[in-house]
Amino acid sequence: MDRKRMESLGKKRSVIRELFEYGNKRKAEIGDENVFDFSIGNPNAPVPKAVEEELVRLLTERNPVEIHGYTSAPGSAAARSAIADDLNRRFGTDFGAEHLYLTCGAAASLTISFSALVEEGGEVIIFTPCFPEYRVYIETAGGKPVAVPCREEDFQIDFERLESALNEKTSAVIINSPNNPSGAVLSEESIIRLSEILSEAERRFGKRIFLISDEPYREIVYDGIKVPFVTKYYRDTVVCYSYSKSLSLPGERVGYILVSPEIDGWKDVYAAVCGAGRALGYICTPSVFQHMLTSCAGLTADLSVYAKNRELLYGALTEMGFSAVRPDGAFYLFVKSPEANAAAFSERAKKYELLLVPSDDFGLSGYVRISYCVSENQIRRSLPAFRKLAEEYFK
Amino acid sequence: MDRKRMESLGKKRSVIRELFEYGNKRKAEIGDENVFDFSIGNPNAPVPKAVEEELVRLLTERNPVEIHGYTSAPGSAAARSAIADDLNRRFGTDFGAEHLYLTCGAAASLTISFSALVEEGGEVIIFTPCFPEYRVYIETAGGKPVAVPCREEDFQIDFERLESALNEKTSAVIINSPNNPSGAVLSEESIIRLSEILSEAERRFGKRIFLISDEPYREIVYDGIKVPFVTKYYRDTVVCYSYSKSLSLPGERVGYILVSPEIDGWKDVYAAVCGAGRALGYICTPSVFQHMLTSCAGLTADLSVYAKNRELLYGALTEMGFSAVRPDGAFYLFVKSPEANAAAFSERAKKYELLLVPSDDFGLSGYVRISYCVSENQIRRSLPAFRKLAEEYFK
Repeated sequence: MDRKRMESLGKKRSVIRELFEYGNKRKAEIGDENVFDFSIGNPNAPVPKAVEEELVRLLTERNPVEIHGYTSAPGSAAARSAIADDLNRRFGTDFGAEHLYLTCGAAASLTISFSALVEEGGEVIIFTPCFPEYRVYIETAGGKPVAVPCREEDFQIDFERLESALNEKTSAVIINSPNNPSGAVLSEESIIRLSEILSEAERRFGKRIFLISDEPYREIVYDGIKVPFVTKYYRDTVVCYSYSKSLSLPGERVGYILVSPEIDGWKDVYAAVCGAGRALGYICTPSVFQHMLTSCAGLTADLSVYAKNRELLYGALTEMGFSAVRPDGAFYLFVKSPEANAAAFSERAKKYELLLVPSDDFGLSGYVRISYCVSENQIRRSLPAFRKLAEEYFK
Repeated sequence: MDRKRMESLGKKRSVIRELFEYGNKRKAEIGDENVFDFSIGNPNAPVPKAVEEELVRLLTERNPVEIHGYTSAPGSAAARSAIADDLNRRFGTDFGAEHLYLTCGAAASLTISFSALVEEGGEVIIFTPCFPEYRVYIETAGGKPVAVPCREEDFQIDFERLESALNEKTSAVIINSPNNPSGAVLSEESIIRLSEILSEAERRFGKRIFLISDEPYREIVYDGIKVPFVTKYYRDTVVCYSYSKSLSLPGERVGYILVSPEIDGWKDVYAAVCGAGRALGYICTPSVFQHMLTSCAGLTADLSVYAKNRELLYGALTEMGFSAVRPDGAFYLFVKSPEANAAAFSERAKKYELLLVPSDDFGLSGYVRISYCVSENQIRRSLPAFRKLAEEYFK
């Protein structure tokens, strides 16, 4: 590790984090309810009652040595079986506990996966706009992120650009659907085409190219849209998942990596995942949450709050003159900045106590990300502020 | 990251893990109560009632969005203040929240600290016998572990050997007191001499040499022995801590890094710690446990069970003819193998269903580690087996 890099990563705050901390200061000054904080994706759909009850039951009725003790590194076999059964039920797959490695959330799933799958100096294709930390994790793994911009009209993959970017140094490609920040869901058509292109590239370059599917928003989809389960389309797939958004437990750090049994030699890949977890200092997923998953793996929070918010916000903002691709999933609205410099737009929005994240850190300039995982009340109260902001641009 | 290294780390099980899994199999065959498993350090002192009650209270009375939401990366300021206050009360120090970075347990504290403090190619002195994973974490950080064997008569530091090992490439030295696996506690005299030698080396080599004090067993000491608080002796100290042993919460992954305010430019070191956490995929310590610490930071489990077990086991085994340095802390007995090959001794012990970890992985051959964080009942029932084993050697 490069100590200077570590210091720099510690000092250089992400623009999301900067805005969030500005928001906290402003709330302290003028009151929480007077700041319209759309910066951070802190899920507010209620944690399922059954999850809270199971956590309490585990704490009060079960043997603490068992509940709080170390589990094996990949996680409790019972929890992994429950998760595998749930996936199989939902997606018609055939996974077992042995394909799952429980992690401390999506960030851990990603760092571990990149470290397990990416060759030293290997390229990892990221489709922009995307979660800014991919770059950090890829670099930790000794890889090189290569950005392939999406089509701006619908934030689907631009396949021509993808094909130009693929080369003999490509170790992996990462997709995130439903997407942070655009809210786009990759269509089945896109997944099929992506799989064909990657399989072709594997043949052409005589090497394996992993597809990492980062899907913490998998359950947050609207209008009956289907999210294809990627292992059914592409053989060399590794899925990264987190319960942060689906169970509203982001701070508890609970997720998993699924190594597709279709991978030729998947056991070696699984071993590399275990080894990467070990090398990065991960012992196991927080144990009481593992035990909770044994009975709650199939649950999801009531996500209807996000659907309501999406309708309300998208409808209101587009009516005011703002433009955005209607998001099919996740809880972000990706709005085109009405002035070229999105950071300037974000600054102007602050005047109305609106905190909107400028898009540059996501690898695409000219947009702001609005997280609508907030109370409906906050959205309603923010609309007059949005209207005043709109009036500065669209008279 | 080297994918081959990741695969190898995933496949090459530690001897502790091998023995533990052999134990699980054997228990399934002949019954839990018939296997005397002394392999893993899974703490069995009861979790303090107040901790369990606070966890339940947080889950049932507080707002779930607040309890399970993301905290800042270093952790809730309230939790960090509570921890700092508790340390100051106990050790007469003057820490604040700003010196603490909460982590996902000791392993995370260590990987993050090494990555933040060790130069690429820098040497890290480890005193053997020591926790086997230090080597893995140092290598992840791009450093090179350099073993300095302890004095075998008391497992205190061999200062002549330390001085020979220090050179211009040394980035850091790590100590673990109370010690896994020997149970030794570094005396104040040792800490003072260590500090003098390191300060001298810093001057000689014109560079900073960090002292990393890994102290998850800090509270587990016997006979009124004092564990010096290292920041009071050496300026360039970073403390790694975990609540795994003191609160019996090993699976929950809760710990911290303390960056000593005495370090010249400590804020830059703290930034490097934050950056390393970020680079390694750590978002925050599991949140409900952070909130628990806000009121429970000063608590410790009732550790008297370990004192009883130590008396019982050390007394009985030495009476049978085995020899060991009486441990002053932690919950391990480090027993000299009565035959040169400790692995062979461990194999022989299995015949009597005794699971004792051979010491080679700890960097010293010829011993076995016996974890006495088990029920008193298990120890009592194991004594006839130990006696039969002793009879094979000491007639």
